[in-house]
Amino acid sequence: MTHFTSEEKAGVYRAIRERRDVRSGFLPDPLPQELLMRLLGSAHQAPSVGLMQPWRFIVIKTRTIREKIFEDFQDASVQEYETYSGDRARLYARLTLQGILTAPLNLCVVCDCNSSCGHSLGRHTMPETALYSAVCAIQNLWLAARAESVGLGWVSILHPEHVKSVLNIPTSMTLVGYFCMGFVEQFASEPELESIGWERRLSLEDVLRHETFDQEWSATRR
Amino acid sequence: MTHFTSEEKAGVYRAIRERRDVRSGFLPDPLPQELLMRLLGSAHQAPSVGLMQPWRFIVIKTRTIREKIFEDFQDASVQEYETYSGDRARLYARLTLQGILTAPLNLCVVCDCNSSCGHSLGRHTMPETALYSAVCAIQNLWLAARAESVGLGWVSILHPEHVKSVLNIPTSMTLVGYFCMGFVEQFASEPELESIGWERRLSLEDVLRHETFDQEWSATRR
Repeated sequence: MTHFTSEEKAGVYRAIRERRDVRSGFLPDPLPQELLMRLLGSAHQAPSVGLMQPWRFIVIKTRTIREKIFEDFQDASVQEYETYSGDRARLYARLTLQGILTAPLNLCVVCDCNSSCGHSLGRHTMPETALYSAVCAIQNLWLAARAESVGLGWVSILHPEHVKSVLNIPTSMTLVGYFCMGFVEQFASEPELESIGWERRLSLEDVLRHETFDQEWSATRR
Repeated sequence: MTHFTSEEKAGVYRAIRERRDVRSGFLPDPLPQELLMRLLGSAHQAPSVGLMQPWRFIVIKTRTIREKIFEDFQDASVQEYETYSGDRARLYARLTLQGILTAPLNLCVVCDCNSSCGHSLGRHTMPETALYSAVCAIQNLWLAARAESVGLGWVSILHPEHVKSVLNIPTSMTLVGYFCMGFVEQFASEPELESIGWERRLSLEDVLRHETFDQEWSATRR
């Protein structure tokens, strides 16, 4: 086995560190077909429980379809906005939460949780691992996209049932995520939610535990 | 914005392509603390809905704890084995499904789905995105580990409630995944499930759709 060169390794860490949830600043240029296939191919190389490969990718360019999704976003966003008040509501109104119509393409990731592929291996006690496999594919795509200067934004302020009906997705399939995607001029140095003051970054120690959940990392490791 | 160099880009694609679900062949060497922190730090840089950062990582080295998890794996695995018959059962018996005791460390990833962090942004219509954020963190870890020649294996043949009780994980938290982790001599050239004949790799076209779910990619793009 050859080890990763220091530059290959730096590339992996850089993609992880500089990946952003991109919802604005998309360039109008379409993604070359070959690049799009390479990115989706990276998603398709994700781990999956039992080699189930339950992810299904819908590439959407048609304007009228995207307009229907955008309308649903507007409904869902108004509903979400109304749960906030005062400063928090004012902050919410300033956030960029989607790029459905401004990005050159949209992508919908769906999971075929009932697929016979994989012969149910590993899913008897934790069936949710089918969905998690599809999410691993999304993160592969996100990192490969960053390396190619392609922005990807996850739009979760949508009603899944409505999106499924617009995209003719069968009832048996689960909507995992809806994304806007395209080349960008630049990636922000920190997440917008951090720079705008919506939420702060936790320290690594805040999320670490030692041996059991009730043993904090800092107490045992400092 | 500086673009990725071709070697940085190659590193990202290589990690994605050569990542494996590793359950055997672990070297006994402990992971240096600095490396472990770098890998978990990469997980912590994952995207999260509303910058919620709901992932919690439990690093487990204690043998007696791991033995209790291993016992649960044995129970769950016998139950799963009994769902198969004939050739499929014989194939199941040949699979390596965990490395709980042979890897130098175990990792449990838990999601605090009810955390107030993130102020519920993006979770009104799709609350499952909290869990998905934790899975994105796992995939970051998996790729960074591959770049560092560290193997990671996802063990899903476990009873989540039992694992939660062994690790004193509060009821309010969701167990996302349990992993074995450590340096390895080498990574297999293809997934064991493929080489042993459990399941075959789908082609990219098999999982692609065009504009809507009912429009196959091949029909429109060939």
